[in-house]
Amino acid sequence: MKVHDLQTPALLADADVLEHNLATMAAALPGARLRPHVKAHKCTALARRQAEHGHRHFTCATIREMEGMAAAGLGEDLLLANEVIDTRRLARLDARVTVAVDSEATITAAASGGVREVVIDVNVGLPRCGCETPDAGRLAALARAKGLNVRGVMGYEGHVVGLDDRDARERLCEESMQLLLTAHAQVGGDLISAGGTGTYDCNVWANEIQAGSYILMDNAYAKLGLPFRQGLSLLATVISVSPSYAVADCGLKALGMDHGNPTVYGAQVWFCSDEHITFAPEQPARVGDRVRVWPGHIDPTIAYHERLHLVSGDVVVDTWPIDLRGW
Amino acid sequence: MKVHDLQTPALLADADVLEHNLATMAAALPGARLRPHVKAHKCTALARRQAEHGHRHFTCATIREMEGMAAAGLGEDLLLANEVIDTRRLARLDARVTVAVDSEATITAAASGGVREVVIDVNVGLPRCGCETPDAGRLAALARAKGLNVRGVMGYEGHVVGLDDRDARERLCEESMQLLLTAHAQVGGDLISAGGTGTYDCNVWANEIQAGSYILMDNAYAKLGLPFRQGLSLLATVISVSPSYAVADCGLKALGMDHGNPTVYGAQVWFCSDEHITFAPEQPARVGDRVRVWPGHIDPTIAYHERLHLVSGDVVVDTWPIDLRGW
Repeated sequence: MKVHDLQTPALLADADVLEHNLATMAAALPGARLRPHVKAHKCTALARRQAEHGHRHFTCATIREMEGMAAAGLGEDLLLANEVIDTRRLARLDARVTVAVDSEATITAAASGGVREVVIDVNVGLPRCGCETPDAGRLAALARAKGLNVRGVMGYEGHVVGLDDRDARERLCEESMQLLLTAHAQVGGDLISAGGTGTYDCNVWANEIQAGSYILMDNAYAKLGLPFRQGLSLLATVISVSPSYAVADCGLKALGMDHGNPTVYGAQVWFCSDEHITFAPEQPARVGDRVRVWPGHIDPTIAYHERLHLVSGDVVVDTWPIDLRGW
Repeated sequence: MKVHDLQTPALLADADVLEHNLATMAAALPGARLRPHVKAHKCTALARRQAEHGHRHFTCATIREMEGMAAAGLGEDLLLANEVIDTRRLARLDARVTVAVDSEATITAAASGGVREVVIDVNVGLPRCGCETPDAGRLAALARAKGLNVRGVMGYEGHVVGLDDRDARERLCEESMQLLLTAHAQVGGDLISAGGTGTYDCNVWANEIQAGSYILMDNAYAKLGLPFRQGLSLLATVISVSPSYAVADCGLKALGMDHGNPTVYGAQVWFCSDEHITFAPEQPARVGDRVRVWPGHIDPTIAYHERLHLVSGDVVVDTWPIDLRGW
């Protein structure tokens, strides 16, 4: 099938960029040094490509992602890097399951739901989940007392990964990881799990990096000057033109908007509405033209779509279900 | 089932609010005076409730919505209020199908794809689809020459529906509708289709109103002082707490973010990330607490979810698939 034959809006991944990004990351962080985060792509076919590049331990954000990865035979070592209150679905999985805990309540939930392995989630500066560093040892002891295997610590420096200034990124990453190492000294275990695409090469303290977005990138991460290329776009069709602007069939229900408007190269994007993007092209557009729309944020964009088309030039070489959506 | 037994994040519709909004709108715009826009809810079960309140002609934004409505037996009179280049799927539907056209290209697409009825889409001030008023007559003649039944005009005053100031809303609505009436005088036909929730009662020029959001409302429309109540929320579970904030399991993949952060009553929302909302509650929260999260924009929020739970007090009285998602 040709790209032009796709109904729009259609989610496209550039095959060359994908391979470049996979190979670049696998060279930098081989094997288990990378624990790819599947929340970025929610697609077991892409996870399988990551496994083929040597990364067979994965990070998930939801129970549904854990279930889908286990069902796809990718459950060698799955970390749910998130707190869960009702853990019963996790205990049923045919996979090695490890869950983040950061409180007595989440430890109790893990143990009572039948989960056997946990990491202590540590707050390293992002106001989200994670215990304070001085609590990590106490929580690890509590988890062990409840029969859980404590595999180590995790701590996501989410306030750092998106900083444009590399010096600031390095400095704040080190500060964050000192907190995590302090916690690890109390907790023990093999895993020191942290990081994201923005800190994949400056976080030298964690022994596994949870990067996800590197695989196809987005406008937000593109600003950081990383060696990964942007390969995820939306194909849209121009459905209406006026002298000063054009309108294509790709809108708020096809795009994560938390990082702002998407980009259309050679055009200024005016605004998006539910099923439309209005933009001013530098060259006149015609009804029926196809345009590529580059999203600000990859994760919530992909989560809107049922399938991802892998394209090489003007050929659709594969079509994969986005099979880890929902909860 | 009790609300407390739902896995989170879960999309909830308040049954009393739904009934209030349906009844209020049906009293104001009975029968075919309202052509409910299903893009707001993407749910044939909700469309059926609208039909039970007397509105049996519907507005859609996508081909998938048209297909789903036809398959659900709700195809008495479906208007695709959007331009389409590939109309072949529409011609196969067991429904009365009318499509918006605003150019020679879209008229040709309608005729060649087997569509039989159209409306001329007129730009009434929103820089999106729609021809300029002076072109409407020429396009109608062209459509008729191609054998299409031209049912009338449509023109969406989307730049007006969200204005807080009622006087401005009324004044700009009138300006927009004068353009539409001018076009209608050239085009002819029975339909003068326009409007949205924000202009449902001040747009007295259109003979059918395409409102959708009124059914459950959102933070954006709540500011307008309309008689409809907000009934769509997300149920989330607190998974982590700190002295100054709490974190619940509802984030960017559960919420349309183009209108900004959602609201949590009794709390200040700090930010959302992929699967989390961080907020500062006025009263201390505990892990396991349930919170309600009120989205800024209903349409792209619902489009993330597989199902909608109808709740009355603490009881889940029904669960409906969001079956019109995708394209």
